Amino acid sequence: MSKKKKPQNRIVIGIHSCMEAIKVNPGWVSEVHLLDTQANEHEVFTGLCKKKNIPVRLKGKKFFNQLAGGHQGVSVSMNESPQWQESAAEKEESLVVFLDGIEDPHNLGSILRTSWLLNVDGIFIPKNRRVDLTPVVCKVASGGVEHVPVESCHFPSQLEWFKEQGYWVYGLKEGGDVLLPKQNANSKAVLVVGSEGTGLRSSTEKFCDQFITIPQVESGSSYNASVAFAMSAYEMTRSRYL
Amino acid sequence: MSKKKKPQNRIVIGIHSCMEAIKVNPGWVSEVHLLDTQANEHEVFTGLCKKKNIPVRLKGKKFFNQLAGGHQGVSVSMNESPQWQESAAEKEESLVVFLDGIEDPHNLGSILRTSWLLNVDGIFIPKNRRVDLTPVVCKVASGGVEHVPVESCHFPSQLEWFKEQGYWVYGLKEGGDVLLPKQNANSKAVLVVGSEGTGLRSSTEKFCDQFITIPQVESGSSYNASVAFAMSAYEMTRSRYL
Repeated sequence: MSKKKKPQNRIVIGIHSCMEAIKVNPGWVSEVHLLDTQANEHEVFTGLCKKKNIPVRLKGKKFFNQLAGGHQGVSVSMNESPQWQESAAEKEESLVVFLDGIEDPHNLGSILRTSWLLNVDGIFIPKNRRVDLTPVVCKVASGGVEHVPVESCHFPSQLEWFKEQGYWVYGLKEGGDVLLPKQNANSKAVLVVGSEGTGLRSSTEKFCDQFITIPQVESGSSYNASVAFAMSAYEMTRSRYL
Repeated sequence: MSKKKKPQNRIVIGIHSCMEAIKVNPGWVSEVHLLDTQANEHEVFTGLCKKKNIPVRLKGKKFFNQLAGGHQGVSVSMNESPQWQESAAEKEESLVVFLDGIEDPHNLGSILRTSWLLNVDGIFIPKNRRVDLTPVVCKVASGGVEHVPVESCHFPSQLEWFKEQGYWVYGLKEGGDVLLPKQNANSKAVLVVGSEGTGLRSSTEKFCDQFITIPQVESGSSYNASVAFAMSAYEMTRSRYL
């Protein structure tokens, strides 16, 4: 399956996330904006942009407040994002993630940050769900959005494709087949995480080879989706370090 | 060490967190407030409070907006919180958490939620740091704050006390002695988590028997504190399920 994504404009905010964007993907930066009243505090950006030949513009509070809270007086306009590379599926060890209804930007940002640090190869979301790489997502991802591709796809055909490449598909689910600590993931694995409210869609469950449950005290509650993802992705990659 | 905490008033917001508060700790509820324009949608609260003889008052938007965002039109005033019980240290398996500088309410709330579900016996914070159980903390904890005690303490003497009870003290730290997956925690363990910015204080490090590092790709970045906590607490309790 060949997939081409149109160039996607996105805006990164926050010191750490903006720094990572400029350092890692300078060719994708169209412009850097600094809050006029704080420009002196951001000389490190001015210097870096000069070196990389990136235009810097001063903007007022109004401009920044329209982006989102937590901007820290700096934003970067990016005209590209990481793209999923099918060659990643040729590796001996690979973990990819399917998000089946995660729409909260804080959860997506958190999942991107953890995915980057755990070396996840890609994040897939259903084609009909809108999950944009908003300023809040980029900020919470704390640099992760510069490294991990987020790909819209048709779940059934994309999951089939991964199975053909030797991946096993694991769905996170209460009352599943096996407790997370007892689970022994294939070295090539797809982890499917459902929404906090309604879990996995039945149309997605059909493709799962195994359902995994995270241990918890008995209660009507459950883990936050990005925390559940982190514990599962950690478990599924931990054998690499043993 | 005997510890008595004064009764602490706190306000819980959000449907799920308020429901857990009333169900689990009805004796600590002084009053339930419903947003006047949404009272019809919250009949489940009216019914529950009637059964438990808890007063319900209607309040306007102004009252709720002063609490915090995400209130969903319901709040509960509590005059108690869970207290640390020293008898927990007599169990054969016990995990407690020391937070050495976590002050972000979202992180504390998230750590409370995960701690509850992973059966953590208590959370300890330094006496001189102010970490209140604010409405936001209670909301993000999603019920966890009704179950897990959060205790202010003098770190050195409290850590000594746990060591005397047979606990081992593990500090989360970059470049530590052992990678998390290779670490084999004692069945009675203290997990110490530092702040995102500055990590563990040297005065706290002195008490650690071992430093643990979570694997990650090489970068100047690190995991979010509540995610790092979740992966570590999961690893330290996973052998209970093998």
